[in-house]
Amino acid sequence: MEWDAWGLGEYRKQLSPQILGLLRAALGVDAEQAPPPSESDVTLRPSALTGAHREALAWLLGAENVHTDDATRLRRAGGKSTPDLLRRKSTDAQDAPDAVVTPASHDEVLALLQWCARTGVAVVPFGGGTSVVGGLDPIRGEFDVVLAVDLRRLDALVDLDPVSGIAVLEAGLTGPQAEELLGAHGFSLGHFPQSFQFATIGGFAATRSSGQASAGYGRFDDMVQRLRVATPSGSLDLGRGPASAAGPDLRELFVGSEGTFGVITEVAVRVHPAPETTAYRAWSFPDFETGAAALRTLVQTGAAPTVMRLSDEAETGLNLALAGDIGGDSPAAGCLAITTVEGTAAHVRARSDEAWALLAAAGGTDLGDAPALAWEHGRFDAPYQRDALLNAGAIVETLETATVWSNLSDLRSAVTTALTESLAAQGTPPLVMCHISHTYATGASLYFTVVCAQTADPLTQWAAAKKAAGDAIVATGGTITHHHAVGRDHRPWMSAEIGELGATALRAVKDALDPSGILNPGKLIP
Amino acid sequence: MEWDAWGLGEYRKQLSPQILGLLRAALGVDAEQAPPPSESDVTLRPSALTGAHREALAWLLGAENVHTDDATRLRRAGGKSTPDLLRRKSTDAQDAPDAVVTPASHDEVLALLQWCARTGVAVVPFGGGTSVVGGLDPIRGEFDVVLAVDLRRLDALVDLDPVSGIAVLEAGLTGPQAEELLGAHGFSLGHFPQSFQFATIGGFAATRSSGQASAGYGRFDDMVQRLRVATPSGSLDLGRGPASAAGPDLRELFVGSEGTFGVITEVAVRVHPAPETTAYRAWSFPDFETGAAALRTLVQTGAAPTVMRLSDEAETGLNLALAGDIGGDSPAAGCLAITTVEGTAAHVRARSDEAWALLAAAGGTDLGDAPALAWEHGRFDAPYQRDALLNAGAIVETLETATVWSNLSDLRSAVTTALTESLAAQGTPPLVMCHISHTYATGASLYFTVVCAQTADPLTQWAAAKKAAGDAIVATGGTITHHHAVGRDHRPWMSAEIGELGATALRAVKDALDPSGILNPGKLIP
Repeated sequence: MEWDAWGLGEYRKQLSPQILGLLRAALGVDAEQAPPPSESDVTLRPSALTGAHREALAWLLGAENVHTDDATRLRRAGGKSTPDLLRRKSTDAQDAPDAVVTPASHDEVLALLQWCARTGVAVVPFGGGTSVVGGLDPIRGEFDVVLAVDLRRLDALVDLDPVSGIAVLEAGLTGPQAEELLGAHGFSLGHFPQSFQFATIGGFAATRSSGQASAGYGRFDDMVQRLRVATPSGSLDLGRGPASAAGPDLRELFVGSEGTFGVITEVAVRVHPAPETTAYRAWSFPDFETGAAALRTLVQTGAAPTVMRLSDEAETGLNLALAGDIGGDSPAAGCLAITTVEGTAAHVRARSDEAWALLAAAGGTDLGDAPALAWEHGRFDAPYQRDALLNAGAIVETLETATVWSNLSDLRSAVTTALTESLAAQGTPPLVMCHISHTYATGASLYFTVVCAQTADPLTQWAAAKKAAGDAIVATGGTITHHHAVGRDHRPWMSAEIGELGATALRAVKDALDPSGILNPGKLIP
Repeated sequence: MEWDAWGLGEYRKQLSPQILGLLRAALGVDAEQAPPPSESDVTLRPSALTGAHREALAWLLGAENVHTDDATRLRRAGGKSTPDLLRRKSTDAQDAPDAVVTPASHDEVLALLQWCARTGVAVVPFGGGTSVVGGLDPIRGEFDVVLAVDLRRLDALVDLDPVSGIAVLEAGLTGPQAEELLGAHGFSLGHFPQSFQFATIGGFAATRSSGQASAGYGRFDDMVQRLRVATPSGSLDLGRGPASAAGPDLRELFVGSEGTFGVITEVAVRVHPAPETTAYRAWSFPDFETGAAALRTLVQTGAAPTVMRLSDEAETGLNLALAGDIGGDSPAAGCLAITTVEGTAAHVRARSDEAWALLAAAGGTDLGDAPALAWEHGRFDAPYQRDALLNAGAIVETLETATVWSNLSDLRSAVTTALTESLAAQGTPPLVMCHISHTYATGASLYFTVVCAQTADPLTQWAAAKKAAGDAIVATGGTITHHHAVGRDHRPWMSAEIGELGATALRAVKDALDPSGILNPGKLIP
């Protein structure tokens, strides 16, 4: 990815004069920004890697897999949150890992971690670099040196069991790489988070990623059958069979462990035959509550489609304002819902008949397939739009949570109010939009997008808004993160999330597996 | 439950002369057994509880909740495996907990555990007493005294959220008690393991129970939304929202922890409206492999019914021999499958149409609803039949495992062979039957029932067969238990199941939460 933006330069977006005008009129965004710095303007903290370190790493991994040049280090200096992108564009000296290393196998990762533990070198596992929670920050903890361990060379489809529908994938495979390897055998993983184009299998597992088709295929943690993990204390091979009563499920301890217990090197995941066909249908609901109740009915009845999402009035309105009428019979007001059903032709017919009937009965107006196709076409574009908006002087950021159905409206109000009040108090009243993109029998996720004008100090500006939102989430009974993970940014709320004794349990596991504390210091564990 | 048998005395079964004749002819079972001992013939190890202990416990819980009489202790001396029942009927001195205590609340359990930790008294949490893996054995570990902590007074429906479909249930509620409390509000848990009539909510969670409707409602671990746990180091309240990416899922560390990390006192579970209607359909498949492939197609297509089970040729044949033609058009050969679909009328219609069509296309012969209704009617009877068979001189025991679909036939063969060879070598060739009762997209469970003649030393006889089966399971890639848990009996295979480093992680958590090691010594953790 680009050092200062999401994705690939060729897909960078320009904002139209109409949108710039709208931003200025509605939010006071000043479109006359200084041009962002070029890469040569950036100064990195010098690498603290010693000659002895370099020699040992070269011996372990090959000299060509030990990188200390600024271009390589800059691209592993952090993730892709809005604060990350703002920091990257600073011309003050920036922190970066002291070296980037690229092991090629589980055994190389294991040997590397054992060397780091002996030598006292901190480690940040690095997959696609798409963290939006500070999960990749090069924090040294008590050590002088930190390595980014880039897993891109672990890129094999190790095994495919077509009968059981299980693929063994190495951790460094990106979403598209995995889909291509599986597609050659007629299979698909069906995991399409917004980070899909760059994020990796290991990262999906380490952060409990959830994709846009989670209603049909589950979260990534649901897909994980087996895990291979390298730790400074040795290797773990976890998971036997599709389900077990043999004690605590240790997979669930390493899924979501964000590199603090070990480095996930291989994941056996549930896969399915590439769908024969897909049915698309968009719906309009008069308001968010009616739409949410309709989604709830589907999932509680056992008739969930593959994709199911609902935008609130603000998000629906903005999308219509930006894109014009996006097709079909959509009214300008109300809330847009997108549904798709995929699978065998007979299954798609059976499930869509049942689901569409329930949505219509629950107050949905059928908008046909065009808005759903349009959503699918543009579903990975939002981060590119964010870059254009950031460069135009806007703050754009997202955050997310989940709660039970009965608490969903209260939580949405609390977070919207917290964000609005915090940013208004700073002189930059925002537009706050929300959608449901992941549904469960007992509840759903809420995904917020915030747009406002940048102040002179946008990092401080957003930090205050983020703190207000996080506090509101915890106070209103939401989880601090439904699918973005914890990293550095959500760590202050982890004790509220799991309690002091829960944190004690995590620290006990950490101490047993990583007694010298080299693994991703300053992340996740409170 | 009865001290020497499953369940309630009024439901005890008698074997017909035909069955006794069949057992003698086919397996050499000697029906002329000495009558089993009466309760007054049983001698228990004397209680080691001191006066000081009793005084402290009475102060904590009330004197009426501290029991040291033999009748109460005998009924908490173990679970209901076949070895348990054989041991109970011994007239040698038997081990039993030194006292049975009945706290009434989370806070009382917490105070009790803290006292036990200070005083050095071991604790065995006790729910319905239905363990079949030695999970309730009164092992003292390094301590002189062990208490059975019977949770029956924690029997409240604490909260019901009808919108989200979440009920908060205290741990001591039995299956029928929970269903009755929920039913008064129009809801159901839908968890019907064979232990349903006696087992408790806390036990379901602590052992990763799985019920007969798991295809529709999931395993009990899938249902758990939140957990409250008392430990010697304090309380844990785990689980926020329907799903989260806030680190490792600590619920999954306590679900399945079998009382070794703490005592589960309260569980928030997913519930659903009591089904409007249920469709029943039985099927015959020419052989087990064809039937298994049909079940696999259903679950991989996303068309799983609520209940789905398949008996192999031996189980199908025995059931037919015992019960006569169980209705419909069932042929004497082949494999019987039972399916039910429940829910709203529209959902049952949609799902059963899709599922029945797939089963017919996969080679199933429709047997109508009668065999499925007959199965449902008798589904909790098997343990009563076992008691009658044990008293007639047969060994009857069950064991279970799970694996991925591609390994299912190999695992079934390996376990069948191991059991057959072990028991034949002891002069008691067995009948080994098997069924699939829990299905997943990637695999299924296998549940074995073994019947043979008792030798003069049936405990040693079965121990050898069980060891052979467990070794075959591990060697063939199965899990040592799919839903019976670990307890004492499966502990020898736990290192193979989770690896030495996995065991290290469990011990680290145990040491952090239960530093004095009072919680269920000798269970689960290798």
